[in-house]
Amino acid sequence: MQEVDLNSDLGESFGQFSVGDDEAMLDLVTSANVACGFHAGDAVVMHRTVTHAKARGLDVGAHPGFLDLWGFGRRTITGDSPADVGKMVVYQLGAMQAVARACGHAMTHVKLHGAMATQAFTDDALSAAIVSAILAVDRQLMLVTTPHNATERAARKAGLRVACEVFADRSYGENGLTLPRHLPDAIIHDPERAASRALQMIEEQAIRTISGARIPMPVHTICVHGDNPQGVAIARTLRERLTAAGVVIRPLSQLSHL
Amino acid sequence: MQEVDLNSDLGESFGQFSVGDDEAMLDLVTSANVACGFHAGDAVVMHRTVTHAKARGLDVGAHPGFLDLWGFGRRTITGDSPADVGKMVVYQLGAMQAVARACGHAMTHVKLHGAMATQAFTDDALSAAIVSAILAVDRQLMLVTTPHNATERAARKAGLRVACEVFADRSYGENGLTLPRHLPDAIIHDPERAASRALQMIEEQAIRTISGARIPMPVHTICVHGDNPQGVAIARTLRERLTAAGVVIRPLSQLSHL
Amino acid sequence: MQEVDLNSDLGESFGQFSVGDDEAMLDLVTSANVACGFHAGDAVVMHRTVTHAKARGLDVGAHPGFLDLWGFGRRTITGDSPADVGKMVVYQLGAMQAVARACGHAMTHVKLHGAMATQAFTDDALSAAIVSAILAVDRQLMLVTTPHNATERAARKAGLRVACEVFADRSYGENGLTLPRHLPDAIIHDPERAASRALQMIEEQAIRTISGARIPMPVHTICVHGDNPQGVAIARTLRERLTAAGVVIRPLSQLSHL
Amino acid sequence: MQEVDLNSDLGESFGQFSVGDDEAMLDLVTSANVACGFHAGDAVVMHRTVTHAKARGLDVGAHPGFLDLWGFGRRTITGDSPADVGKMVVYQLGAMQAVARACGHAMTHVKLHGAMATQAFTDDALSAAIVSAILAVDRQLMLVTTPHNATERAARKAGLRVACEVFADRSYGENGLTLPRHLPDAIIHDPERAASRALQMIEEQAIRTISGARIPMPVHTICVHGDNPQGVAIARTLRERLTAAGVVIRPLSQLSHL
Repeated sequence: MQEVDLNSDLGESFGQFSVGDDEAMLDLVTSANVACGFHAGDAVVMHRTVTHAKARGLDVGAHPGFLDLWGFGRRTITGDSPADVGKMVVYQLGAMQAVARACGHAMTHVKLHGAMATQAFTDDALSAAIVSAILAVDRQLMLVTTPHNATERAARKAGLRVACEVFADRSYGENGLTLPRHLPDAIIHDPERAASRALQMIEEQAIRTISGARIPMPVHTICVHGDNPQGVAIARTLRERLTAAGVVIRPLSQLSHL
Repeated sequence: MQEVDLNSDLGESFGQFSVGDDEAMLDLVTSANVACGFHAGDAVVMHRTVTHAKARGLDVGAHPGFLDLWGFGRRTITGDSPADVGKMVVYQLGAMQAVARACGHAMTHVKLHGAMATQAFTDDALSAAIVSAILAVDRQLMLVTTPHNATERAARKAGLRVACEVFADRSYGENGLTLPRHLPDAIIHDPERAASRALQMIEEQAIRTISGARIPMPVHTICVHGDNPQGVAIARTLRERLTAAGVVIRPLSQLSHL
Repeated sequence: MQEVDLNSDLGESFGQFSVGDDEAMLDLVTSANVACGFHAGDAVVMHRTVTHAKARGLDVGAHPGFLDLWGFGRRTITGDSPADVGKMVVYQLGAMQAVARACGHAMTHVKLHGAMATQAFTDDALSAAIVSAILAVDRQLMLVTTPHNATERAARKAGLRVACEVFADRSYGENGLTLPRHLPDAIIHDPERAASRALQMIEEQAIRTISGARIPMPVHTICVHGDNPQGVAIARTLRERLTAAGVVIRPLSQLSHL
Repeated sequence: MQEVDLNSDLGESFGQFSVGDDEAMLDLVTSANVACGFHAGDAVVMHRTVTHAKARGLDVGAHPGFLDLWGFGRRTITGDSPADVGKMVVYQLGAMQAVARACGHAMTHVKLHGAMATQAFTDDALSAAIVSAILAVDRQLMLVTTPHNATERAARKAGLRVACEVFADRSYGENGLTLPRHLPDAIIHDPERAASRALQMIEEQAIRTISGARIPMPVHTICVHGDNPQGVAIARTLRERLTAAGVVIRPLSQLSHL
C-alpha cells in the first residue's frame, strides 16, 4: 500500500488582499504550508488558515520567505548573510508555531518559499544556516523539500527530518529542480496531465525531467499550487486519481515511512 | 531590603535604521523589552539584542506594537477588532520566543508598546484579547504594565502574572497614566530629578500625579526610555542612586515578591 | 440633456496581489481613480491602469490614501498633523501625475480614499491641508467628493474645482455621508436597485438618505466600486439604464457644466 | 577658474527613524540628492529636506532606489524587468518633483541609489529603461553618475544631460567604479585624505584607481556621504581645501560648463 501527502502553499492573502481559494484547497489537501508574513500572509490570515486546517485534521507547517511583500518572495535578493537569513527563518517559524499553538494545533513542518528555496538549493552556507534555524526552533520539525541539492544535504547532515516533495503542476529541468516559471511549459495547467505525472512519480518513486531522464527519490508529498488558476481542479483530479489507484492520502505526520 | 527591576525598550533599530544606544543601556538595566518587528525591530536586531542581554544576565521580554513602522507604533489606529489585535500579539510573541530560544535564552515577560498599550488601558475588550493572546503563547509570562486600568484588570482576572511599572522619565496625570508626550513637562530630561522621582515612588510604593496626588501601587520595575536623549544618563544616575539607597536591582524573574 | 461621469476606484492591486476586475470596469466607466501606492497600488499597476484608461479615452485621477497597506487605508489613523497628511497627498499626486505623463496621458482629478476621506469630511484643518496639497501640485485638478462637508467647504474656499459624487452602491445616512461598511444595508449588491437609485439621484439632483430625506446636490459623477463583487454587473446595468434614459455618460473633464 | 558642485545623499530618515546629520550637511554642500520613499525617506522628510535646501539656495534632486526599506536599497534584487524598474523611477521622480514644487523649489537632477545604480552600471537594458523614465518625467533633468559605464552611455545616447560625479570618501577599482563597501579601504574616513583625493581628481579631471591608474573624466560634482560618520568632517575639510585652492563651489545647475 502506497501513501502520500498532498500539500499546498496557503494563507497567502494579506490584509484585504485576497489570494487563492484557500477554503477549496483545504478540502482537498492533507498538509498546509502557511505563509508567515514576510512575502505574504499576516497574523490574522495565519490564524484563519490554521483554524480551518485543524478543523479538517490537516497538518500545518511554516512557509517562510524573504521580506519581500511586493515581489511575493520570488525575487532573488542577495546581500544578506546566511546567518541573517537564518534569523529571519527563526522569526517566521516562531510566529507560526505560536499561531498554531494559539489555535490548539501544532506546527509539524517547514517548507521554504520562492527565491529563498531556490537560492538555498545551490548554496551550502545558506542551506546550513536555514537548517540550523529550523533546529533551533524545534528539532522535531520536518523539512519539506525537493531532494538532491544543498538543502537536503544540509538537513541530512544536521539530523533534520526530510520529507521529499514533487510538484504535480511543474516541469523539472535536468538538475532535478523545477523549471523557472517564465519558461514555456514550466507550469502545467491541465489537471489530467498533472495527475498522470504525479501518479507516475509515485509509482516510479522518481521524477522525470523535461528530457525524460529519471531521477530517483522517495515521494513523500505532492505539492499543488493554490495560486495556479487550475490549482483546485488539479488537486481534485489528483485526489480522485490517487484514490482510484489505491494510494492512501495522509498528512505528513501520519505517513508510516517517514 | 527593597528590590526593583530596571527595564528599557530596546532593539528598536530596523535594518540600516539605527535607534538608541542599546549597548550602553544594556549595561545599565536588568530587563530588556525587545521590539518585535511591527512598529520597530527586525529578526536580526532581535537576535543581536537578546544575545547581548543574555551575555549580561538580563531578562528579555517581548514589546509588541501595532503594524505601523512609519508611525513607530505611536499612532492611534482603530478599525481592527480586539481579536485581530490579539492575533498580532500572538504572532509577535511567538517570533520573540523563538528568537530567545535560538539565542539560548528565554522570554520572561511582555510589555505593550505605544498606541497599543494606550488604547488597551481604557478598552476592556482589547485588554482581554491581548491577555488571552499572551496566555495562549505561554502561561508563565509576566505582563509589565502601569496598574489600575483595563489591562491590569484583564490580566488579574485571567490569572496572568502582573509586574507593575513606573516611568522614571515621564509625568503622570490624575488618571494614573503617563501624560501624552506632546504635553509640556510630559518627559523628564534631568537625570537627578528622574532618579529622585523613582526613589520616591519606590519608597512610597505609589506614583505621584502632576497635582501631587498619591496613587498606591507595588513598584516592581522602573522603565527608562532608550529613545530619550538623556536615557543613558538617567539610567546611570538612577542605578547609582538606587544602589546608594540600598535598593537591590534585579531582573524581573528574580524579584522575590513577584 | 443630462450628462454624468461614471467613476471607479481602480489600480488597487499590489505586486502579485490582484484586486478587482479592472479590465472589465475600464470598459464601463469614464473616469478611473487610481490608487497611488500608499493603501494599494504600485508603480507598475499605476502604469498599467493609466495605459488601459488612455486607450479607452477615460479620465484618470489620483486616489490617495493613508500609508496603510495592511488595512487598505480604511482604518482610522490619528496622530499625524494635517500638514503631514497634506505632504503625503502631495507625494502621491506627484507620483500619479508623473505616471500619467509617462503614459502620454494627464491626471485630471483627485478623489480621497477610505479613512482619509472620512476623517477629512469632519475635520476643517485636515481638509484645508489636503486642498492646499492638491493646489500645490496642480491648480487645474478637480476634487471629486461627496458635497456638504468640511472637504467641499475647504475646496470651494480655496478655489479648487469640485465634482460632486454619488455612490450607486452605498446607502446614505442623515448626515449626507455613506453609511459605514459594517452596517446592515450599507452596501447595495443588487444591480437594478443600484441603477434605479443612481437614476433617481440624477433626476432629482439630490441624494436620498436611508430615512428618505432628500439632500440636494449637483450629481456630476457616479461611483461604482470595483471591489464590490457585483461591481461590474452594477456598472453594466447602470450604463444601460442611463443610456436608455437619455443620460450622456462622459469623462469628468468633458462635462459641459463643470 | 575651476568650479565644482558638492552633493550629498540626504533625507534618508523614515518616520521616527533618524538617519545622518542632514542639517549640518546642508550647510556644507551645494546639491542635495533626496531619498524618495522606496529605500529611505518619506513624504514628510522630503518636504523638510527640500525646505532646508531651498532656504540655503541648494539644488535638489531625486535619489530613487529599489523598494527595499529593510535593506536600505543596497541589496541586489533581480527578477524585475527593466521596464518595471523604470516605472518605479517615474513614480519616485514624480513624487519628488511635486514635493519640490510644493516647497516652491525645482528638482534639477537625478542620482540613482545603491543597488539600482550598481546594477544599472553593467546592464544596458536597465540603464536604457531608467534613462527613458527620467526623460518621461522631465527632459531637462540632469543625471548625476560615475561615467564610463552603461548608464552614462544610455544617457548620452538618449540626449539626457550628464553630470559626472566622483566620491571623496570612496576608493575606485580598475573598472572605474567604487569598491564594494565591505572591502578593506573601500571607505575613506580621514577628512584630509578624502579632501586631498578630491582636489587631485579635480586638478587631473580624472579618477585614480587603487592601483594608481588614471581614468580621465570631467569632474562636475563631488559626493560626500551623509551616512559616513566622518561625513560632516569630510565635507567641511573639503570645502575649506577647495576654497583655499581657488575652486568655486556651486550648485549643479549653476556650473558654467555643464
